[in-house]
Formats: sequence, structure tokens, C-alpha cells
Amino acid sequence: MDIRLPYLIFLGAVVSVRDAKTGLGVRDWRPEACAGQWRLPGCAVDLGLPDLDPVAAVAAGAQSLLIGVAPVGGQIRPEWVPALVAALEAGLDIVSGMHTRLASVPELAQAAARHGRHLHDVRHADRRFPVGTGEKRSGKRLLTVGTDCALGKKYTALALTRAFVAAGHKATFRATGQTGIMISGGGIAIDAVVADFLAGAAESLSPANAPDHWDIIEGQGSLVHPGYAAVSLGLLHGSQPDVMVLCHEPHRLEIDEYPGFAIPPLGEVIDLHLALARRTNAAARFGGIALNTSALDDAAAARLLAGHEDRYGLPCFDPLRSDLAPVVAAVTEL
Amino acid sequence: MDIRLPYLIFLGAVVSVRDAKTGLGVRDWRPEACAGQWRLPGCAVDLGLPDLDPVAAVAAGAQSLLIGVAPVGGQIRPEWVPALVAALEAGLDIVSGMHTRLASVPELAQAAARHGRHLHDVRHADRRFPVGTGEKRSGKRLLTVGTDCALGKKYTALALTRAFVAAGHKATFRATGQTGIMISGGGIAIDAVVADFLAGAAESLSPANAPDHWDIIEGQGSLVHPGYAAVSLGLLHGSQPDVMVLCHEPHRLEIDEYPGFAIPPLGEVIDLHLALARRTNAAARFGGIALNTSALDDAAAARLLAGHEDRYGLPCFDPLRSDLAPVVAAVTEL
Repeated sequence: MDIRLPYLIFLGAVVSVRDAKTGLGVRDWRPEACAGQWRLPGCAVDLGLPDLDPVAAVAAGAQSLLIGVAPVGGQIRPEWVPALVAALEAGLDIVSGMHTRLASVPELAQAAARHGRHLHDVRHADRRFPVGTGEKRSGKRLLTVGTDCALGKKYTALALTRAFVAAGHKATFRATGQTGIMISGGGIAIDAVVADFLAGAAESLSPANAPDHWDIIEGQGSLVHPGYAAVSLGLLHGSQPDVMVLCHEPHRLEIDEYPGFAIPPLGEVIDLHLALARRTNAAARFGGIALNTSALDDAAAARLLAGHEDRYGLPCFDPLRSDLAPVVAAVTEL
Repeated sequence: MDIRLPYLIFLGAVVSVRDAKTGLGVRDWRPEACAGQWRLPGCAVDLGLPDLDPVAAVAAGAQSLLIGVAPVGGQIRPEWVPALVAALEAGLDIVSGMHTRLASVPELAQAAARHGRHLHDVRHADRRFPVGTGEKRSGKRLLTVGTDCALGKKYTALALTRAFVAAGHKATFRATGQTGIMISGGGIAIDAVVADFLAGAAESLSPANAPDHWDIIEGQGSLVHPGYAAVSLGLLHGSQPDVMVLCHEPHRLEIDEYPGFAIPPLGEVIDLHLALARRTNAAARFGGIALNTSALDDAAAARLLAGHEDRYGLPCFDPLRSDLAPVVAAVTEL
């Protein structure tokens, strides 16, 4: 992938921060790659970046417009098309994580060809993957897994990668979703891979490496999710993690948007992961539990983490709040 | 799918019965749909059907040429193209289970357009599936699962469907692979679905039905397969089986073509399936074990089946050898 930086982050007329999570993730984790934000009339979200239109953004050095909105269904909205055409005319490439391919919109294909711009669909790998082999690769791998979607697997992997590097370890974040790819500039949107090649794509994502190098792999979905567990299992088998970190939102009792599907006790979730992970790495183990404690004050967060440490015998931390050095030490010492 | 029958089964110059398994499966399970076979010079496989070229096949009533060869990789071989063009010219449609799309071969696309013939790629659904919901559907479902690929999940499902119907039950075979689709005329090649929509595709395959109707669903891959387990899990979660039947080849000790990956004890395989299946159907259970005993004489087969019945407490049978009426009775009585 040959994405030119920095980005102008396009927010359209989005009104909920939740729907702007792609732009938010890139701003949080790669602020130096963000030249500004472009908000259409009605937009109620502010990423705290300079407000620029495409012409001003190009003058400020921006190279690519990034679609920072993640609407349900992943379709490019018709009302965005004139804005996207204007961006191409101003000199920007476009980077999209939508299911709809940019070039499938005739106006965008024509404008990109006319102005010599690139259209990047990071959700589509545009390459074939092999079937998974299950063969062991050199190097160490850590995979974040979760009790549900959208509860911190990407942020935990990014925070751990920083902490590994800060502690002097060789470590690489491996993105498996569109926002992670936009942040890191590489990776595979694993949920868009044809089912037969899921484990093979995961194997390709973290190739053989130096024996003391850590790939920190962004998890997807959940093994206990009624809709997405297959994605999680293919990623697990192909990643062959030495260490897993379980991500959990302590106030979430049911799978989001799946009423009646209770999140099982964490001990059961851990056992299920170990049973399946050991099929491709007999030494797979858990290295910690990451809890999102953002709704709690410091004292309550500390109590919650200590309680989970006692119960599960694993380091428990909030990736955005805790000192991660002890977690890194515990994971890498074994 | 609007496939016109009967078929002329194209065998190319195949020399191994194993590589002709698509043609063999259709001959075994839908002989009335097979007008003849077409073998090119060098072909060493004989399905026991009349040898016909396309012109003779059309005269005998054939409507579609079915590619009965399943080469590794699933590509259309260049040396087949003149033969396939001749079939289109003679008046036949073409039915293929290859990964390569028929219309991606320019000569085939042009000949089909010129003569008004249809090109059917049964491996590609050419429709979008929803994300799995996990919602309960009316009707009963039986899914064949296995300890590996290619050991009888399709034949077991087909044999059970016949036995269910023979016993007076309403039952429908649901194909999940290309050969099954060619046999039954419908279904979804589940391994070709984009990962995000696997469970949703499986839900679409066996829609709500009468409370006493049984969908007998063809399993794919294996939950203990290092390359394909994700396909199996998406199919399992979306199928929400009330009953599973475990298919096993008793002489197979390792996953085929995956040396070092031992097939676990059947008790472990059963427990793993139950733990995962109960996420979308809390009442999921095993209804029996199907063993391929073709390498054994009658007495040895009987001993093997009796030994497995004692050990696992489930009806054990060979789908091509045993009387299946007791199995159907046991499955449907509960």
C-alpha cells in the first residue's frame, strides 16, 4: 500500500462521535499524520484538528483525504460524492475503509483518472491468500482477543506495541481492520477475506521474523459472538499467538446489539480461547486482561483491576490508564 | 439457480478417481440427471455412463455440460477451453464448481454470448449475505461435522436425507459445497463467502421452516483443521443445529496433508463442538457417529461400530452400509 501522508480527515455531516471512530482512531494514534479535518454543514463532531477545505489542506501539505466516518453498512453516501470529487480536483488521493469500493462510484473513478489521483480501499486486499498451513513461524506473537466487538482490542494492541518498544523490545503492530490499517499504513482487513483463506491471510499478516521480535496483532470480533466468531477463529489459528490478552468492557453484560446473548464468565472465555489456540500453538497462554475503566474514578478502577487480578491470576490493566511496563515485563519474561 | 438438466459430465483427461470426485458425486447421488460422460484422449476414469460428445449428448437430451473434474487449486485448465467452447456451440450450458469464473475466460464468455448459453459458477453465490443474527428459526436442523475434510460429511448428509424421507419425515438436503449444489440444484458454497458474512450465509441457507421439517446440512472442513476451522465455525453458528452427526475415517490419524496435526480423540472433538454449538442453540446435541468402514469386511465393520457405540453412547453407523432407520428414529424421537 502506497498511501501518501498526511491526511485531511473527512467527517461529512456526522453527528455522533461513535460514527466518527475511524477519524478518531487515526487522530488518537497517528496525530502527526493528520493535517486537518473537513466538516460539512451539520457536522457535530470535532476532532480538535484545524478545519480545512481541500484547497486549504493541500496548501497546508495534506496528500490524502481519509474518510473518517464509519456509517453502518459501510456504504459511500451519495451526498459525499461532490465533496470527494472536489478533494481529487484539489490534489488529494482518497483513502477509504468502506465496503463500497471507491472506483465503483463512476464520478470518483472518472475524477481520479482525470487528475491522476489514487483511490485506496483499505478494506479490500486485492490479492489472493493461500490456505492456512498451520506451520510454525519464528518470532513471537501476541493477539488481543475480546468478549465482544468494539471494546478495545485495537487500542490495547496499539498501546502494548508502544509499551513493548518503550521497554526496548522489537515489536510491530499488525492491523486487521480498516482503522488500524489507516493508522499503521499496512495490514489486512481480515473480515473481508474469503472464508477459505482466513487462516492463510492471518499467517501472511505476521510472517516469520527474528526470534525475539514481537508481532502485536489487533484482534477482531469475538469467539463468543454469534455473527463474527468465524473471523476470530481464523485470525486465532493463523496468528498462532504465544500470548493472548483478553479485552473486556466490565459494564457490558450482553453482546452489543445481540440481546439475549450474555457475555460468558471471563474464565469460560479464557478456557475456550486456550482450547482453540492450542491447535496451532501448543504453548499458547494468556498474558493479561485489559479492562476499559473509562466510566470509573481512579479508586474504583484500581479496585476493579485488583479484583480481576485476584480472580484470574493474570495482570489486569486499562491500556489507556495503567502503567504497561509491568505487563510487558510479565509477558516477555516467560 | 436455473440449471437445466440432465448433465453431460466432462472428465477431461483425468487419470485419478480422486480428481473426478465432482462427477462421481453427481453420478452416485443424482444418476437420473446424468445423460452421459465425455472423456478426452488419455482419460483413465470411467463413471459407467454412456460416452457421448456434445453433439451426441444434445441428441440424447443433455442440457448442460458439468465439469466433473476437481483439480487442485480449482482453476479452469487451458486445454479444456476448446472442448468447452464446442459444448456451448452444440447447445449446452456449462456448470462449474471452479474458483475461476467461467466468464473470466474470454473464449467462453464470447461463445456463451454468441450462442445464448448460460455459464453457471456454483462456487460463487453472486449475492450479498447479511451478518449473522443468532436469532432462533423454526424447524429442525441436523449438521454433519467431521474430524477432517473429505471423509464423508456430504455423503452422510445425503444418505440421512434419504433415510429421513423414507421414514416419512419432511427433510431437505442443504448443500454447502459445489458438488452438493450440483447434486441438489441449490445451496451456498460456504467456503467462498466473505468472512464477515459466513454465519449470515449459513442462516440464509436453512431459513425458518415448519416445526417438524428437518434441514440436513452438509458440513464443511473441521473445527480441528488448522486451515479451515473458521469455515466450520461460521457454518456451525449460523446453522444452529439441533443435532450434529460426527463423521470420521477410523484409519485416519492425522489431518490429511497436515503432518503433525493429530486428529484428537473423538470425545474431545464432540466436547469442542458442543461448547461452540451451544452459543447459538443451547439444546444442541450429538445424534450419532458416522464411520467410513469401506476398508473393512462385514465382521470387522460391525465390531468397529459396536466398539464406538459402547465408548461414546451414540448410534454409530456407516452411511453407505448400515440400516439408517434406527439412526433416524433415535434422532427424531428426542
